[in-house]
Amino acid sequence: MSWLNVRYRVRTRAEDIESAACALALEQSVEVPLDAVHDPFVRDHIAGRVVAIAQDGEGAFRVDIRLAVATTGFDAAQTINMLFGNSSLHDHVELVDVDFPDGFARHFAGPRFGIEGLRRILGIPHRPLTCAALKPQGLAPDALASVCRTFALGGIDIVKDDHGLADQAYSPFVARVRACQRAVEATRRETGRLTLYAPSLVGAPKTLREQARIVRDEGVGAVLVAPALVGMPAFHELVADELEVPVLAHPAYMGAARVTPPLLLGKLFRLLGADAAIFPHSGGRFAYSSALCSEIAAACRSSWQGLRPVMPVPAGGMTIERVPEIVRFYGPDVMLLIGGSLLLAGDALLARTRDFVAGVESAAADNARSVTERA
Amino acid sequence: MSWLNVRYRVRTRAEDIESAACALALEQSVEVPLDAVHDPFVRDHIAGRVVAIAQDGEGAFRVDIRLAVATTGFDAAQTINMLFGNSSLHDHVELVDVDFPDGFARHFAGPRFGIEGLRRILGIPHRPLTCAALKPQGLAPDALASVCRTFALGGIDIVKDDHGLADQAYSPFVARVRACQRAVEATRRETGRLTLYAPSLVGAPKTLREQARIVRDEGVGAVLVAPALVGMPAFHELVADELEVPVLAHPAYMGAARVTPPLLLGKLFRLLGADAAIFPHSGGRFAYSSALCSEIAAACRSSWQGLRPVMPVPAGGMTIERVPEIVRFYGPDVMLLIGGSLLLAGDALLARTRDFVAGVESAAADNARSVTERA
Repeated sequence: MSWLNVRYRVRTRAEDIESAACALALEQSVEVPLDAVHDPFVRDHIAGRVVAIAQDGEGAFRVDIRLAVATTGFDAAQTINMLFGNSSLHDHVELVDVDFPDGFARHFAGPRFGIEGLRRILGIPHRPLTCAALKPQGLAPDALASVCRTFALGGIDIVKDDHGLADQAYSPFVARVRACQRAVEATRRETGRLTLYAPSLVGAPKTLREQARIVRDEGVGAVLVAPALVGMPAFHELVADELEVPVLAHPAYMGAARVTPPLLLGKLFRLLGADAAIFPHSGGRFAYSSALCSEIAAACRSSWQGLRPVMPVPAGGMTIERVPEIVRFYGPDVMLLIGGSLLLAGDALLARTRDFVAGVESAAADNARSVTERA
Repeated sequence: MSWLNVRYRVRTRAEDIESAACALALEQSVEVPLDAVHDPFVRDHIAGRVVAIAQDGEGAFRVDIRLAVATTGFDAAQTINMLFGNSSLHDHVELVDVDFPDGFARHFAGPRFGIEGLRRILGIPHRPLTCAALKPQGLAPDALASVCRTFALGGIDIVKDDHGLADQAYSPFVARVRACQRAVEATRRETGRLTLYAPSLVGAPKTLREQARIVRDEGVGAVLVAPALVGMPAFHELVADELEVPVLAHPAYMGAARVTPPLLLGKLFRLLGADAAIFPHSGGRFAYSSALCSEIAAACRSSWQGLRPVMPVPAGGMTIERVPEIVRFYGPDVMLLIGGSLLLAGDALLARTRDFVAGVESAAADNARSVTERA
């Protein structure tokens, strides 16, 4: 229980990689030249060390470094500091992966629901889940609640706020959350079908706590939070102390370009308490490759540190037409999120929403059949 | 008071820049295609719009966009969300600059001291200030306090914790802060010279509040916080609610590569309350160019939004030998931070520290003379 194993990708010339790797190990630990470390305890138990260096493509190297667990103080902010504090300022260094020793994750919230918990709450054991986004911002609470009601009538599993909805004059948080939560409750009484409404919590820590209180008071069933935006340490404290419902992690401001998305979403956000992780699927508005999307989904679902697997939520410009392809790509443990493309339907929103839900059900059935046939 | 002006740098082909710019304006506001915006208020007052596009080097463009102030809710997290939430996920987009309308900054803490306040507290009206860093982590409180005492005896203006010092088993926060603060108080009684000790605050919001309480109880005179690490919204709340002393902003985890450092340090960190901003000076361990360092210093000192100018603090592998050059480069309104290079002196730490302080004083005098002669 004394070392973290951290993997970086370093772009440099072959003749410089050894000194670059040693500099990285010192930068992320004692932050002085080793000659300035006079204390034997610090030299032996605190200073980082290079474990392995391997070529990783043209002009780049994989560098594995051991950092002392004791330096993290088991705190979220300090752990990120040790992984990538100063080295984030180096254009040529990327944080690729980390492995914690057994027991490390016990100091953190982890997902309280994960894939299995989300399925249990929704009563959907097998098929891919559906998610839609309330937007655009600028609408008043009643208008958003009306869109929310239509999505719920259309059979969406989780209706989430657009991450741009905050506490704005034209749509105050408390009024919006109340109106939308009542909309999903009313449709449930009409149809018998459960839709969770997930409002977006955003702000400084005190604001987040107040928003969490409103969420509890209104009986809201899930929330959306962007860990990179509110700060990962604040995200962690919010989940651990204030939230009793599933947490969807939004990737806003995550573009801290040089931390790989599988690590951020599948490990760090998971460690800090995300139950589901939204990310851009390839071929939409963002340039994530399908290989990267596969890696993200695999990281979210992997066995790791005894923490619950996280539901991958591909999004970012998806359309109903792509549903069969997305379901084939990800298999059943996925939540499909379609936003703006549904809203383009205007007055036909209910019909389009039903098409989305039916599309997912039929794609899942096709997929299950073809898996069975292949088996 | 209705629009923010935001500048991005977008790498794309000339034939794609118009559609890329429009997509950016929508991504950072309504997050749906304009055809899906049916409400006239949202179309006219909420949707972002492209103001100007200009070539900015080979294959890149400067894109100016107007975003509605109302979408920010005057909240730090939501403001960052509107500036660069989803678009941070685009490899080809960089956030370059922002201008807020008059009065916007009044909703935020801003620097409570800035350059002038730091000088007033220290009683140093003109010359460059000196700063040294307590390290390496792994030392016990007494050992750190002994280094702190040596720096204070040597005449350093501000002794800051290494940003790696947190609340670790081998050096608990409260014990370290108490020991180091007593060290600077004791040397002041001996020498009559004021040295501020600036401990590093790091953790989730509740931890930060608790650390701020200890800072107040112990009569500590300054603090170090990394806004990108604790989260900019949490940083802002900490400054506004808990801190009554100058705040040095540390750049750890700031490498969210695609926000320009002059914007982060000179505007965003300033808006949220930083009084001084540490950044890597060129030619040290980090690859910041001297042009970039000039821009950072200029941004920190600029008149902006009626907020106090921020003290630039170049660091990151500086040495005593470079003091004259650094003072010439930055002029008098600067704080020079030398860390590991002082500690290499081992038993000669006091002498080396005195050399640093004397070097700054004499470089400042030379500099003032040459400025007078040129005039």
